[in-house]
Amino acid sequence: MTDYHNIARNGLTPDELEKILRRIGKERYHINHPHHKMMMAGKMTKLQLQAWALNRYCYQAAIPRKDAAILMNSKDPVFRAEWRRRISDHDGTNGLDGGVARWLKLATGLGLDEEVVKSERQALWSTRFAVEAYVNFCRQRPLLEGVASSLTELFSPTIIAERVPGILAKYPYVSEETLAYFKPRLTQAPKDSSFSLAYVREHADTPEKQQAVIDALIFKTGVLWSMLDALDYAYGEAGRIPPGAFRGTSNE
Amino acid sequence: MTDYHNIARNGLTPDELEKILRRIGKERYHINHPHHKMMMAGKMTKLQLQAWALNRYCYQAAIPRKDAAILMNSKDPVFRAEWRRRISDHDGTNGLDGGVARWLKLATGLGLDEEVVKSERQALWSTRFAVEAYVNFCRQRPLLEGVASSLTELFSPTIIAERVPGILAKYPYVSEETLAYFKPRLTQAPKDSSFSLAYVREHADTPEKQQAVIDALIFKTGVLWSMLDALDYAYGEAGRIPPGAFRGTSNE
Repeated sequence: MTDYHNIARNGLTPDELEKILRRIGKERYHINHPHHKMMMAGKMTKLQLQAWALNRYCYQAAIPRKDAAILMNSKDPVFRAEWRRRISDHDGTNGLDGGVARWLKLATGLGLDEEVVKSERQALWSTRFAVEAYVNFCRQRPLLEGVASSLTELFSPTIIAERVPGILAKYPYVSEETLAYFKPRLTQAPKDSSFSLAYVREHADTPEKQQAVIDALIFKTGVLWSMLDALDYAYGEAGRIPPGAFRGTSNE
Repeated sequence: MTDYHNIARNGLTPDELEKILRRIGKERYHINHPHHKMMMAGKMTKLQLQAWALNRYCYQAAIPRKDAAILMNSKDPVFRAEWRRRISDHDGTNGLDGGVARWLKLATGLGLDEEVVKSERQALWSTRFAVEAYVNFCRQRPLLEGVASSLTELFSPTIIAERVPGILAKYPYVSEETLAYFKPRLTQAPKDSSFSLAYVREHADTPEKQQAVIDALIFKTGVLWSMLDALDYAYGEAGRIPPGAFRGTSNE
């Protein structure tokens, strides 16, 4: 595992910076997490898939808020007009036909109760803390770091390309319609990430800013990784569901 | 496991409220966590004890900041003068002789490098997110809820009374001096928690405030519990240390 601490101290070219960012993805993106591998191997129970969908909802539901925080930190109307599209992608025209709604459909398609999912009350505390940390990061850090934290989207088409056919093949009770969330993401994410990458390459023009960009992406991989850590601990082999967390539904 | 959702909807007497708060501790305080039980059973390796001390440092180091957030939310000089003592307990007269410094001594007594511990760079992301959530909670929520979130101190003398002799008996390389952090806590915590409990009993005078107090304590038990979940997943049987996290020291 590469140590990225102070790695930019002597300054990097944009290409060198991009190379480091892509290496972070290769090493730390949650496609490498045992819980994701378990899902791909078809080894998950319905309860485990439900727990994943219910917890991941907290993340999906917070995406437009973190993007609003990034908008808030930009003084450039051109940037804002471009970034705003992400919020429309997730909230849709009326709040009911975007990515958040599609994730809710995924959750209910797995047999979960819509109100329980939306309340987030049965989500793991670790999930909620990670999501909150992500929104706060985008709110409190400089714009450049908020943009950089979105760069996990560079790697998301790979995980989606693996996840959708994997789930459909291994879990016969999951329909393509239930997974409708992922389809638009395959075109949205590359558009979004190429904008962010170009922005970061252009604006990270000092060693300090380059290090901040690197740290922002590491932080973000930590958000996603820690969410799977918590899921795997609670619902994986250890099966140590914390007090108050989701324990399955009766309406399957 | 009791469901505390809407439990105060019809209003509670102060005694009923206190009974519920104590039940939350009984059910959800991290004295019940498998990772704590593993420590008490003498089954931890030195690496596991080190990981616990290194991660828990992030929590200890944030306590004076969350207490400052509570001070910030109080307009009553009498309350502030009383609550301020907690900050002195942790920071000491000069920042180097209070609880935070004593925890650092515990960490270095276990063979950890002081700078590594203080940098928090090798702590688990889940630890950092949980600690940040706690500070933000005390900052953003009404004073009453910040005070209520401190009520885990009602239960801490029990865990300390178990932890100190347990560690000394089972881990011969740990000295009483290394555990010096805990001794003052045995008198500080009961003083602190009896003040907080009296405050909560007096000021939670509507069903809404009572529910908020209950939810605040549940949240706080979630902070502490999730920290042990993360430790146990990374350093327990599963042994799934996330990228970038502490993997042991060479200077033992």
